[in-house]
Order: sequence, then structure tokens, then C-alpha cells
Amino acid sequence: MNDVKVDVALVHYPVVNRLGETIGSAVTNLDLHDIARAGKTYGVGTYWVITPFAEQQQLAAQIVGHWTEGYGGSVNPDRSNALALIRLSATIEEAIEKAALTYGTRPVVLATCAKQQESTRSFAQARQLINGDTPVMILFGTAWGLSPAVMAMVDGVLPPICGPTAFNHLSVRSAASIILDRLCGRGES
Amino acid sequence: MNDVKVDVALVHYPVVNRLGETIGSAVTNLDLHDIARAGKTYGVGTYWVITPFAEQQQLAAQIVGHWTEGYGGSVNPDRSNALALIRLSATIEEAIEKAALTYGTRPVVLATCAKQQESTRSFAQARQLINGDTPVMILFGTAWGLSPAVMAMVDGVLPPICGPTAFNHLSVRSAASIILDRLCGRGES
Repeated sequence: MNDVKVDVALVHYPVVNRLGETIGSAVTNLDLHDIARAGKTYGVGTYWVITPFAEQQQLAAQIVGHWTEGYGGSVNPDRSNALALIRLSATIEEAIEKAALTYGTRPVVLATCAKQQESTRSFAQARQLINGDTPVMILFGTAWGLSPAVMAMVDGVLPPICGPTAFNHLSVRSAASIILDRLCGRGES
Repeated sequence: MNDVKVDVALVHYPVVNRLGETIGSAVTNLDLHDIARAGKTYGVGTYWVITPFAEQQQLAAQIVGHWTEGYGGSVNPDRSNALALIRLSATIEEAIEKAALTYGTRPVVLATCAKQQESTRSFAQARQLINGDTPVMILFGTAWGLSPAVMAMVDGVLPPICGPTAFNHLSVRSAASIILDRLCGRGES
């Protein structure tokens, strides 16, 4: 069922605000649920939730615990299975190191970005890595996106998700869902 | 920019609960935002929010108004442009009639469903309609999905969104985003 070695990471720090300043953003309930459900659908190994803030880690752990160990999971086992994908990590580097332990080799780390820019990996190239059994970690930024420091440390950057319009302001939940469909979907028509 | 004649409709009544009983669900803020943003990205004409309940219509109108006429739009014009796609409608039939006035002909109404079932239109067939300039309205159900009465009145049913796993519990926000990418995306790899 889960043959691909794909992790996703939702980054709450370091990300940028609308002014381009590096900030830490707040964990939100629906980011956890929606991306976990999409991750479970597309065979993701681990959904990393990245925040260095102790109280934000506690909030995320409480939400996950409610669904994986508490009342939520007993009434909705599907949601429990999805939320069980989540692991908390203080930093992106820590998540990469832990994923390397799981997969036996460091994952190729790919950033995502809504802005038109020089992208260094096409979706086809990323699919090729995944189909070739290479572990891949896809980073998604909250707020106004991943900070320049993150963009500089990754192995590649995926193209922005574009439709037929110039509008490129998808929610991170939508972007993550579409990218997982493009990379790990069965390409059904 | 917006050449396709595609509307989406988020149905809050009639939908089913986990027991299969027909219910009305509550409007949620993030369903409005996420699907409007995806709709704007993929060139959707109108994002219909279907609820017969007066207080739910008021809630939805307040949220939309905040972003299209109120403070929200002044600080975030992109969000304003997205939320401006939304029109409220008491029933699916009313939305279809209004869309028919806009497009000059009744849209082909396609339902979506997470369950494995007999689907009557492939994504390729739906894309063909859209590329052939036929108006199409795609219905998405909240709660546990569109009611049997809705499934019986539509012109076709799209396949469920599947990944490589048997898990099929995407949020409606994720499902709508992926389906718009499959139907209205540029097929970029």
C-alpha cells in the first residue's frame, strides 16, 4: 500500500510574513487534518509538523492525541489513521535527520513556493525520484511561504502550482493536496 | 484569463451524515476561503455556496462581505478577488438556473463522491466538455457527501479521487483543489 518513500513537512518557522520578514507562524487545526488526510491518501510516510515553539508543539500534540489516542479516534478511525502520520519536530534539520534514520539514507529535500521563480526540479523529475525509490521530503511553508534561508538549504525547488490564470494564492492545504496528487497520484484520467 | 465555463458548488443541503441520513451542514469559514482561492487559480466562473438556512446564508454573506467590501479586502486584495467568486444560493436547482442565465445554456452538472462506485464520467471526458466550451457545474458535498437525491438528479458522476492507497477520506477542500487541477490545470509536469 505504502511503497513510496515520501515525507511532507509543514514549516511554521522559519517562514516569511507579507513584508518578507522571517517569522514563526501558529499551528492550525485544519492544516494538521487536511494535509494528514491527503498524505494518508497518497501513501506519505511521515507528515512532519515543524515548530520550535514549545506551546505550539503542545497544541499540535493535543490535537493529534485527541484523534489518535482520545475520543476522536474512537468515533472516527479514518481520521485517527490519518493523524497518526504526524510527527512533531523543532527544526527542519531534525526532521531530515529522523527521516534519514527511517529510510536509511538522507531524503532529497524539495521546497515548494507559490512565486514564479527559477525552479530546479520539475514535477516529472520529482516523480522519477519517487518512482526510483529515492526518499523525498517535500517542504511546505505556512504564512507567506518558506524563508530564503530554507530555500537556500534544500536540494531542489518545485515549480509553483499554476492554473490557466495568473492568480497564485492557493492555501497551503490546497497546494499540498495538488502536489501530492501530481507526484504520487496514479495519473488517472 | 478566464476562458473556461466551469462553476463549482459546495452543497450544505441535502448531504448525508455518517449514518447516511439526509442532513443540512454548517457553513465553515475555511471551506469558503480554500475553495474560492482554488477556484480563482483555475479560472472558475462562480463558486456557489448552497444552503437553504437563512442564518447560514447570513454567516456566509458576512464572511464574504468582510473580504470583498470590508477591512479584509483592503489589506489582502488577492483574498478579495478570490472570495468575490462566491454567490449564495438556497438550492442546487436555483444555482443551476442562475448559471444557465450567465452561460446562455444549462451547465452539465457533475457530482463528486469519495466512494468507489459506478462513475459515469471520467476526468478525461469532463476535460473534453470543458475544453469544448460546454458550461460545467461541479458539485461537492460537505459532511459525509451529497445525498442520494442529488446523485440521482445530476448529469454525471466523476470518479473518486484515489491515491496509491485504499484511504479515501480527503477533506472537501483537498478534493475540490485536486479535481480543479485535474480538470482545469495546464497538465504541467
